[in-house]
Amino acid sequence: MNAPSSLTSLETPCLVLDHARMARNLARMRTQLQALGVRARPHVKTCKSLPIGERMRDPGGGITVSTLAEAEQFFAAGVTDILYAVGIAPNKLDHVRDLRARGCDLTVVVDNVDAAAAVAARQAGTPALLEIDSDDHRAGIRPHDDALLATAAALARGGVVRGVMTHAGASYDCRSAAAITAMAEQERAAVVTAATRLRAAGHAAPIVSVGSTPTALFARDLRGVTEVRAGVYVFMDLVMVGLGVCPLDDVALSVLCSVIGHQRDKNWLLTDGGWMALSRDRGTAAFPVDQGYGVVCDVHGAPIPELVVHATNQEHGMLRRRDGGPLDLARFPVGTLLRVLPNHACATAAAHDRYHVVDGGMAITAIWPRGAGW
Amino acid sequence: MNAPSSLTSLETPCLVLDHARMARNLARMRTQLQALGVRARPHVKTCKSLPIGERMRDPGGGITVSTLAEAEQFFAAGVTDILYAVGIAPNKLDHVRDLRARGCDLTVVVDNVDAAAAVAARQAGTPALLEIDSDDHRAGIRPHDDALLATAAALARGGVVRGVMTHAGASYDCRSAAAITAMAEQERAAVVTAATRLRAAGHAAPIVSVGSTPTALFARDLRGVTEVRAGVYVFMDLVMVGLGVCPLDDVALSVLCSVIGHQRDKNWLLTDGGWMALSRDRGTAAFPVDQGYGVVCDVHGAPIPELVVHATNQEHGMLRRRDGGPLDLARFPVGTLLRVLPNHACATAAAHDRYHVVDGGMAITAIWPRGAGW
Repeated sequence: MNAPSSLTSLETPCLVLDHARMARNLARMRTQLQALGVRARPHVKTCKSLPIGERMRDPGGGITVSTLAEAEQFFAAGVTDILYAVGIAPNKLDHVRDLRARGCDLTVVVDNVDAAAAVAARQAGTPALLEIDSDDHRAGIRPHDDALLATAAALARGGVVRGVMTHAGASYDCRSAAAITAMAEQERAAVVTAATRLRAAGHAAPIVSVGSTPTALFARDLRGVTEVRAGVYVFMDLVMVGLGVCPLDDVALSVLCSVIGHQRDKNWLLTDGGWMALSRDRGTAAFPVDQGYGVVCDVHGAPIPELVVHATNQEHGMLRRRDGGPLDLARFPVGTLLRVLPNHACATAAAHDRYHVVDGGMAITAIWPRGAGW
Repeated sequence: MNAPSSLTSLETPCLVLDHARMARNLARMRTQLQALGVRARPHVKTCKSLPIGERMRDPGGGITVSTLAEAEQFFAAGVTDILYAVGIAPNKLDHVRDLRARGCDLTVVVDNVDAAAAVAARQAGTPALLEIDSDDHRAGIRPHDDALLATAAALARGGVVRGVMTHAGASYDCRSAAAITAMAEQERAAVVTAATRLRAAGHAAPIVSVGSTPTALFARDLRGVTEVRAGVYVFMDLVMVGLGVCPLDDVALSVLCSVIGHQRDKNWLLTDGGWMALSRDRGTAAFPVDQGYGVVCDVHGAPIPELVVHATNQEHGMLRRRDGGPLDLARFPVGTLLRVLPNHACATAAAHDRYHVVDGGMAITAIWPRGAGW
């Protein structure tokens, strides 16, 4: 078969990436980080795709991964400076050693003495960042906790204390720009405090790493921070729109689907875009505007504001008017192509193995593969 | 690398399938369908795996798929009698024609005149089932609706009216065995009524197809039905447990993950089993027992009833006591392997590309690949 040349020649459901929107998102983050004087270490957990990661990365710069599969994917393409940003499980240390032996400068993360001791014991010289809890939402050591120096000491008995990192995931719970800016300062202060304590204890700790798309874009000052990890900004999504991080027309990712039927009595459109294609993520459920399973656009990407994907089965999407009112089904005959903007780009992209790249129009300018798994 | 021989030699997270439990689930459905005198047309949307589909299928029998990718996967292995059970989108008809030209006896589904006309026009002789709405929950034509005969007539202008099908997805909203049994009878009555009307109008309509795991297992009588499509029964999951369809120890699928840290102040365990590995499905959220993101078991598969996965990030699981009380973290040191039973087997399996098969113990007896995509 020939490569598809237009969105109208694809089988649905499939993933569409708007290159112009992505380019705008990339430029925005680059401008912001340059203004703040910090390097990017973009997180490729959202895209899992080389052509996109290369556009996010500084020339010759490093990346962040959420799986060793992503590390393998990017290392195979020549990226060597890689941070695996999930607390290391002991059963992954042989794989880490293998990647490092092949020339990958892989850094791992620890937040406790046991993991630090396991890293130090498995291979001399393995570098790790100490994960800092800056917002009480997930993992990490609090910056003033005695465990910080104990963990660093355990790591230093064989490993290398390369620095500190944190992820202010609580920024996703903020409901104003001011709150996100305050969270960015809290994130910064936590890691700078921890790095200062480590250095006072004799560890070089050159890396001070923060990152989330909201805090990266709303930070006013990142003094003491050396690098920013963010990932979802490249696509944006409805959670970011709900947080006020970007307008709706910055969302670069959508799922192309087809109308497959009508339920006239219920005022529903049925599509072949179910939760397998859109994901089960309901990240906007608690927001002032609940976007259901996604905002519906026409095939050109223009929102149809009165519609929402209100329910999904595995391979079925159910669309109705937001107000629940009568729907003019004749506007959407069977076969109509629609594009659904995702709640959470990381989750939606995960169901797909490629991006169909368009540049504003319907012509497909590239097909970019994406990875999966662990 | 050598193939892993034991759960303790795997990198986490990954998918584990308990063969003994699966065999019990398979035997239960087979016994039930034999007692009811209907054929199985198992749905492979849950497993997407040949060795599992072969165990579900009657010798030489047909299967049901949710994507044309599944049809390709099973057709390549010699399965020819395949029902694609999602209302057909016009952009898939070239692919359908191609599969049929290669010898696959692929049947499609329509629930409206426009789709029926598209099928009839694209290739003479393409068989389709008319989808019947038996429970008001998703797609289909109501059995007494005039649209039934109009759709059959449109299809018959080139295609073949092979029969009717329905899926009583509303069985997932039932809260008692009696309610599920009643739903099974409602499902049966709807398709038998529709088939009778079609036959009276001169269509042969030999196939009368129903299917959901709850209604298949709780039906008392399927007179007039020729085949049953069910899929999730092969693994079972916490939704099925919550519905009373099976006990907890019938759940054959689990996600193996590792403890990667402790948050002592919060009484949390952190694992590397996040929503990417478990899925975002919260199918038990509205049940009397909300299972969070999954029931936690030890590495042998024995439940640890006081624990639950209460929250997830992409690659992090947060586990706590169900009662929110103090957790004895020393029982679960970093590196401890845990197995998490899924809310929804279809969604959880979708994140993984293989099953690690065990037979009660920790030894891996087989690795079975699974498919994905469309």
